[in-house]
Amino acid sequence: MTELQKEDFSKWYLQTIQKADLMDYSPVRGCIVFKPDGFELWEHIQEDFNKWLRTQDIRNVYFPMLIPKHFLEKEEEHVEGFAPELPWLTKVGDEELEEPYALRPTSETLIGDAFSNWVNSYRDLPLEINQWANVFRWEKKTMPFLRTSEFLWQEGHTAHENEENARERTMSALEAYADLIENTLAIPVYRGQKTPSERFAGAVDTYSVEAMMRDGKAVQAGTSHYLGQNFAEAFDIKFLNRNNEHEHVYTTSWGISTRLIGSLIMVHGDEQGLVLPPKVAPTQVILIPVGPWQKNPAILDRLKELKASLTEKGLRVRIDETDNTPGFKFNEWELKGAPLRIEFGPRDLENNQVVVKMRDLDEKVSVSLDGIEGYIEEQLDVMQKRLYESALVRYKENEHYDIDTLDELKAHIAKSKEAGEVPGFILIGWDGTEETEAKIKEETGFTTRNIPFSPPVEKKVDIVNGKPAKHTVWIARAY
Amino acid sequence: MTELQKEDFSKWYLQTIQKADLMDYSPVRGCIVFKPDGFELWEHIQEDFNKWLRTQDIRNVYFPMLIPKHFLEKEEEHVEGFAPELPWLTKVGDEELEEPYALRPTSETLIGDAFSNWVNSYRDLPLEINQWANVFRWEKKTMPFLRTSEFLWQEGHTAHENEENARERTMSALEAYADLIENTLAIPVYRGQKTPSERFAGAVDTYSVEAMMRDGKAVQAGTSHYLGQNFAEAFDIKFLNRNNEHEHVYTTSWGISTRLIGSLIMVHGDEQGLVLPPKVAPTQVILIPVGPWQKNPAILDRLKELKASLTEKGLRVRIDETDNTPGFKFNEWELKGAPLRIEFGPRDLENNQVVVKMRDLDEKVSVSLDGIEGYIEEQLDVMQKRLYESALVRYKENEHYDIDTLDELKAHIAKSKEAGEVPGFILIGWDGTEETEAKIKEETGFTTRNIPFSPPVEKKVDIVNGKPAKHTVWIARAY
Repeated sequence: MTELQKEDFSKWYLQTIQKADLMDYSPVRGCIVFKPDGFELWEHIQEDFNKWLRTQDIRNVYFPMLIPKHFLEKEEEHVEGFAPELPWLTKVGDEELEEPYALRPTSETLIGDAFSNWVNSYRDLPLEINQWANVFRWEKKTMPFLRTSEFLWQEGHTAHENEENARERTMSALEAYADLIENTLAIPVYRGQKTPSERFAGAVDTYSVEAMMRDGKAVQAGTSHYLGQNFAEAFDIKFLNRNNEHEHVYTTSWGISTRLIGSLIMVHGDEQGLVLPPKVAPTQVILIPVGPWQKNPAILDRLKELKASLTEKGLRVRIDETDNTPGFKFNEWELKGAPLRIEFGPRDLENNQVVVKMRDLDEKVSVSLDGIEGYIEEQLDVMQKRLYESALVRYKENEHYDIDTLDELKAHIAKSKEAGEVPGFILIGWDGTEETEAKIKEETGFTTRNIPFSPPVEKKVDIVNGKPAKHTVWIARAY
Repeated sequence: MTELQKEDFSKWYLQTIQKADLMDYSPVRGCIVFKPDGFELWEHIQEDFNKWLRTQDIRNVYFPMLIPKHFLEKEEEHVEGFAPELPWLTKVGDEELEEPYALRPTSETLIGDAFSNWVNSYRDLPLEINQWANVFRWEKKTMPFLRTSEFLWQEGHTAHENEENARERTMSALEAYADLIENTLAIPVYRGQKTPSERFAGAVDTYSVEAMMRDGKAVQAGTSHYLGQNFAEAFDIKFLNRNNEHEHVYTTSWGISTRLIGSLIMVHGDEQGLVLPPKVAPTQVILIPVGPWQKNPAILDRLKELKASLTEKGLRVRIDETDNTPGFKFNEWELKGAPLRIEFGPRDLENNQVVVKMRDLDEKVSVSLDGIEGYIEEQLDVMQKRLYESALVRYKENEHYDIDTLDELKAHIAKSKEAGEVPGFILIGWDGTEETEAKIKEETGFTTRNIPFSPPVEKKVDIVNGKPAKHTVWIARAY
């Protein structure tokens, strides 16, 4: 972490996203305005995930945002899980409604009802759809992007003729998230299974990809749920199977949301502001004229030419033609996280070269204008990988496998605090009971993140009671 | 109109959209489920309009869906216009909220508030943003796609330093709609200004593009509003102008919605079902193996090859490999409105040819497989234009310029009904008063659509009272 981040990470985060013009606060409790640079990050995530959906022949749909009360109540665990944070539509104009509608926290119920009409035989399966939508969870504590009363997300819903197929989809969706988050957002993730207490309300099994922020805290970046026949039973989704018998389908659901934007900032951002991975940066290349450029129109003309040739290649490029000083502009675009900056003045024009500065590196280099387009493309690719690698290095520094007791954990937390370091992710042994999970949380604020599919080390004893461990689990403080 | 359409146009419409699998009803009052083929039509409209937005450097944002009650009340006409159909969020979990939130019917209020924070000087202007969102208007009578309690739309919001610039944007947005609807949806539109009684609540002037359905009724396909300084005053959006004086900005807003999907069906659909313009059809080319194709794998192989080469060219292609008979498949894909069908059997394989059938033409033609890709692209282009031209011919047949009195109008309506024809669009003279508008509506159900920018004929006298006409106006029954 940088100095500012160490001082007060939340403050750094809130200042950075506002200064970088990603968002604004709104008069609606816990809701933010996504400004163009913030929303465009989401648009690139959408494009990317839509590509994967197309390879799977999963098509987009749109369901009503309102859920009749009695629908939510059909799956008992489900409604219990969401009830306290549900906003209710009770009135239209001056008239009270007979039955209130909930503003959707997720759409398993309405979609389950539709599936029960759409599925008749195994020939109709798998039935797989996706929805991009706004959802509502009126949480007590909110934080821009990471936790807002209304947020945007994608929810995939599928029905299958057997458990095996449904479980395959649950895992392939999780892997698609891991792929998107690692390759497009340059954020390494921890793949694993949630403990029962952290499961999605109504699921048989929940899997997650978790990411580590610069302050060592976790963000649950994506989840995929194997729902078994729970929702099929609640909504009577039956089909005639290959043995000519009526049977309930096996369903899955999975989602990622605009909290990925928050993760992006918290993983890559530094003292100067945002650092955006090239694949999602709204401005990938910023061209800045320097020196007495206003007196020499050839400078701006040459930059416009360069912009045109880069745009032709599919890059997102802007020229900063404002009256501000170069120094001001450099700061501004560092703050906004533009991956690659080009400075171009009279001497550069003369020498047929530009000065290139990558957002995440300190040095500037002079590069010939001949073939500059290829150079820029390559540098952006390299930076994309470099951000991932740098994050991975930080992850490794902040992972701890050698903590075996609650006292050791507390000592580790105290020591980290004193040293101005982050406590990070701790790999622990867990006896599989809710009691020990609760105890860890109560005493340290750490929660179970997930049970990794391939833990770096197998932990043998439970961190709380020293009994034999049933699982090796990542724990961390979480957003 | 075809026979089925003549019998009962609404019934034809409702059956057609369900059979073609565009939508399903939902348990939420007046809300529908957009199924994949229905939602994809919207996605193509979005892609197309996003292209225009990019040429204008207007970027997408996302504002909260909830609007605090006191915000809506700041612009008096605005809240009056929307109040009866506003759904209210009054409760979260078990707790009553202190101030209820409306589910947005449109976002001028929240955006006006944000603009007041974002604008300081003329240098910040124009400020132009766009939002794709769900909106709510709890209307009494609903109809799938055309009028639903929740619908999807795009709303553009802009602020300018003077009236001229704001009016320019109002008109350029309207022209962008006309362009999209005419060129992408192949629906000709009537451009014009709404009468004061049909204005957007809070606007100075509202302009619309109107389309004529096959049953002669109108759909308001897109609207663009010049809001003057009304919202700027209500939300205190002030800027320092070039004379160093504080002044209120001039704003505009403009929108198109998922009702365009309904219009698409009602303009192009026929006895066999949907007829989709190639530019938005989810399946542009359907490949159907015929004859004993299951015994001869070379047939399906050749179709897969063709699909690959067409997909390569950016076309949306499907092969129907189901066990159904060719006749069943032909019907099914006609119903779904796929623009171009290819039949391919053993003899075609032998002769290196395919049989091509365009959705909107009766004949089938045999075409050599050599260079078939170019032929298909060309035929789709030609069909796109042909659909527009055919619609235009129907428009002209159903336009009437020679009706000068209310009695003549009533006689025309009666005569049309008797002949099984549609009364269509009537061009009338109007004295500019609300009274005559109300009288026309009361006696005939016809409403003013818009005052055309370039009327085909200038009408001299008011249709109700024979007084000198102030305007020439299109009237029609409307959805």
